[in-house]
Amino acid sequence: MKQKVIRLSPPQLLVVTFLFFIILGMGLLKLPFATTEQISWLDALFTTTSAMTVTGLAVVDTGGAFTLFGEVVVMSLIQIGGLGIMSFAVLIFMMLGKKIGFKERLLLQQALNQTSVGGVIKLVKYLFIFSFIVEGFAVLLLATEWVPEFGWKRGLYVSIFHSISAFNNAGFSLFSDSLMGYVGSPIINLTISFLFILGGIGFTVLVDLWKSKTIRQLSLHTKIMVIGTFLINVIAFMMIFVLEFNNPNTLAQLSLSDKIFASYFQAVTPRTAGFNSLDYGNMERSTLLFTILLMFIGAGSASTGGGIKLTTFVVISLSMIAFLKEKKEIRIFRRTIDQAHIFKALALSMISVLLVFTALFFLEMTEHDASFLSLVFEVVSAFGTVGLSMGITGSLSAIGKWIIIVVMFAGKLGPLTLAFSLSRPDKEKIRYPKEDILTG
Amino acid sequence: MKQKVIRLSPPQLLVVTFLFFIILGMGLLKLPFATTEQISWLDALFTTTSAMTVTGLAVVDTGGAFTLFGEVVVMSLIQIGGLGIMSFAVLIFMMLGKKIGFKERLLLQQALNQTSVGGVIKLVKYLFIFSFIVEGFAVLLLATEWVPEFGWKRGLYVSIFHSISAFNNAGFSLFSDSLMGYVGSPIINLTISFLFILGGIGFTVLVDLWKSKTIRQLSLHTKIMVIGTFLINVIAFMMIFVLEFNNPNTLAQLSLSDKIFASYFQAVTPRTAGFNSLDYGNMERSTLLFTILLMFIGAGSASTGGGIKLTTFVVISLSMIAFLKEKKEIRIFRRTIDQAHIFKALALSMISVLLVFTALFFLEMTEHDASFLSLVFEVVSAFGTVGLSMGITGSLSAIGKWIIIVVMFAGKLGPLTLAFSLSRPDKEKIRYPKEDILTG
Ligand SMILES: [K+]
Ligand SMILES: [K+]
Repeated sequence: MKQKVIRLSPPQLLVVTFLFFIILGMGLLKLPFATTEQISWLDALFTTTSAMTVTGLAVVDTGGAFTLFGEVVVMSLIQIGGLGIMSFAVLIFMMLGKKIGFKERLLLQQALNQTSVGGVIKLVKYLFIFSFIVEGFAVLLLATEWVPEFGWKRGLYVSIFHSISAFNNAGFSLFSDSLMGYVGSPIINLTISFLFILGGIGFTVLVDLWKSKTIRQLSLHTKIMVIGTFLINVIAFMMIFVLEFNNPNTLAQLSLSDKIFASYFQAVTPRTAGFNSLDYGNMERSTLLFTILLMFIGAGSASTGGGIKLTTFVVISLSMIAFLKEKKEIRIFRRTIDQAHIFKALALSMISVLLVFTALFFLEMTEHDASFLSLVFEVVSAFGTVGLSMGITGSLSAIGKWIIIVVMFAGKLGPLTLAFSLSRPDKEKIRYPKEDILTG
Repeated sequence: MKQKVIRLSPPQLLVVTFLFFIILGMGLLKLPFATTEQISWLDALFTTTSAMTVTGLAVVDTGGAFTLFGEVVVMSLIQIGGLGIMSFAVLIFMMLGKKIGFKERLLLQQALNQTSVGGVIKLVKYLFIFSFIVEGFAVLLLATEWVPEFGWKRGLYVSIFHSISAFNNAGFSLFSDSLMGYVGSPIINLTISFLFILGGIGFTVLVDLWKSKTIRQLSLHTKIMVIGTFLINVIAFMMIFVLEFNNPNTLAQLSLSDKIFASYFQAVTPRTAGFNSLDYGNMERSTLLFTILLMFIGAGSASTGGGIKLTTFVVISLSMIAFLKEKKEIRIFRRTIDQAHIFKALALSMISVLLVFTALFFLEMTEHDASFLSLVFEVVSAFGTVGLSMGITGSLSAIGKWIIIVVMFAGKLGPLTLAFSLSRPDKEKIRYPKEDILTG
C-alpha cells in the first residue's frame, strides 16, 4: 500500500468538487424517476449548476418538472454547494486570512483552536452544526404557515426545502411563482429573509458577533458588514417603496402593510437570495436598474452569497470619495484600509464588469427575442448567483443557457479562487498532509 | 487704477468660460434670424452645450433648423470648445504634468520654452496655428468632393463646417443623415477620419512624434497612444465587419469596397468623433454593445476627444492582467506604471460608470418610450462626448434633455478638472500673475 499526496491546490480542489457534484447531479436528474417529463441533458446541467452554485435560475419549473427524488437531488446540491462554499471561504479567512477584517484569522484561531487539520475539521463541524440548527429552527417557523396549508407531510417537506434554499441563498422555490403567493405573510417574509440575511452576512461575522463582548472588540470587517447591510437594506426598501408605489402590476394593488412587506422583501432579496414576492417582469425599469446594482454588489465574504461583496463595494465607494477629495488614505471607523485591498477591490470589480459585459455581448448575438434590459438583468443575476429573472430563463437558446451556466460557475467560484490565490503569502501551493487511502 | 488678481482656480475658470459661451450661444440661437423656425430655449441650450462640449448630439436638425448665422454660431462654439479643451489639457500636461507620459512636460518645456506666461501664450499659439493649418488643408481635400456637388460657395462652406467639426471631434454635420450619403466615398471617409484621429490622439503625442528622432526617444504615453489607437481600430474594424456583414440594414446591401469603408468608419468614429455613415438605429445589438464600450473608452488625453481615455483603458486592462497573474507591478514597454496612476485610472473609471449609471437611472423614470439599450447608448455617447445616437435624442422629454446636457458637461469637464486637481503638487491654488486691466 503506497502513501499518496493529493497535489491539487485548494482552488483546483474546489473546482473539481463542484464539477463532480454538478455532473453527478445531472446524471441523477436524467434518471427516469427524477422528472415528471423527460428533460434535456442541457436543462439538467443548467439545473444542477444553478443548484450547486446556489443561484436559483431555473429553466424548468422546480416544483412541477421534478419528482420528489428530483427535488431531493436539487435540495442536496444546494446544501452541498452552500456549505462547501462557506467552508472554503472560511478556510481562506482562517488559513491565509488577508481580507479586510484582519482580526478574523486570529479570532477564528482563538475561537476554534484550529492550527492543524483537526482544527479545520472542527471549524467546518461548527459551521455545519450552526447551519443545521438555524435551518431546523426555521423549518419549525415556516411549518406554522405551511403545515396548516398543505398538511403535515407536504407542509414539513415544503418547509425543509425552503429553509435549506433560503439559508444557502439559493432562491429555488417549489412554487412556480416563487413566494408571490405569500407577499403579505409575516412569517414567510421574515423567516425566509432572516435565513438568507444570516447566511449571506458571512460566518466570520457571526463568530465575531458571538465572541466579542463589546462593540469596540468587533473587527472592522464585522462593523462594515453589519452597518453596511443595515444601511443598504434601508435605502433599498425606501427606493423600492417609492419607485413601485404607483405601479399597478406590483405595489399599487396591495394594502399598505403588504406594500411594506413587499418593498422590504424585494429590497433584501437581490443581494443574492433570489426569492421574489413581486413579479420582476412587471417592475419599473428604474427599479430593475437599481436591482441590477444590488445584485452586482451581493452579500458578504465567507457566506452563501455572491456578487463582488458588500465590503468590496464599500471600499470602492470610499476610494472614489477619497479620489474626489484628493486624499491618499481611506479611513473608516478609525482604521486605514491598505492600498493593496483597494487595488484588489477595484481590479475585482473591473474584472466582474468585464465578465458581465462579455457574456452580454455573446447573448446579444444569440437571444434576439429577449430585451436588452432583461439580458443585463439575467447576466448580472447569474454572475451574482442571485437567481432573480425577468422571466426569460426558460426561453433562452441552447447557447444562451451555456453562457449562463458558465457565468454562474465563474460568478461563484471565480472571486473565491481569485481571493484565495491572492491571499497566498507566497507562491507555494499548500500540500495536504499525507494520509493512507484504500487502494484495494 | 487698482491692480486686481483673478482668484479663480484654473478648473473654475474653465467651467465659467464654458458656461459663458454656452449661454451666450443660446442667446444667439434664440435670435429670430438664427433659425428657420423658432426653437425652444431648452433646445437652444442643448445645441450650444453639445457644440461647446464638442459632443454632436442634436435635438434639432443642424442643417435644416438653423440659418447660415445659426450654423456659424454652432461652428464657432465647436472651434472655441475644441481648442479651449485642448489648450487647457495641454496646460495641465505642461504645468503640472503628472500623467502617464512623464516625459511630456520636459518635452514641451524644451520644445516651446514656456516657463512664463509668455511661454503659455506661445504654446497655445502653436496649437492654434497647427489646428488651423490642418483644418485648412482638410477643407481643400473635402472641397474636391463637395464643390463639384454643391458649387463653389456652398461646397466650400460645407467643407469648412465639416473640417472644423471633424478636427474638434464634434460630430455635427449639415446633413440630416450625417455622412450616410458618403458611405463609399474615399475622400470623405479618409479626410474626416484623419481629422478626428489627429484631433483625438492628443497634442502632446503629436509634439512628441514631431520632436523625437528615434522610436526609443518617444515617451511611454506616445507609444501607448500610437500602438493602442492602431490596435483598437483594427480590432474594431474586424468586429464590425463580421458582426454587420449579414445585416440587411447596414453592410449586406453594400459592395465589398463600401463594406470595408463603412466598417472602417464605424470602427473609428465611436471613440469620440460622432459622425456616422451607417444607421445606428438599425445595427446589430452586439455591435451596439461593442460601440458603447468604444465610446466609453474614448480618445487620447490633451485632445478634442472624450471618454475615460485610451491610456486609462490600457492601464486598467494591464492592471486586471497583473491582478490575475498576481503581479504587483504593471510593466509596459520596459517601464513600470506608478501605483498612483493605476489607482487614478481605476477610480476615474468607477466614477465614470457611476455617472453613467445615475443618469441612466433617472432617464429610466422619464423616458418610457425609448428602449433601455438606446438609453444606455445615448448616455454613454453624452458622457464620452461622442454624439452618436440610436435616434432618440430629438424625442427626449424636457427632463431627459436636461439630464443629457448635464452628462455632456460633466463628461467633458469632469475628468479634466479632476485630472487637474489631482496633478496639483500641493493644495495651493495657482495664482495668476497680476496685470493691469482697464476699469474705466
Ligand atoms: K441565489
Ligand atoms: K463628438
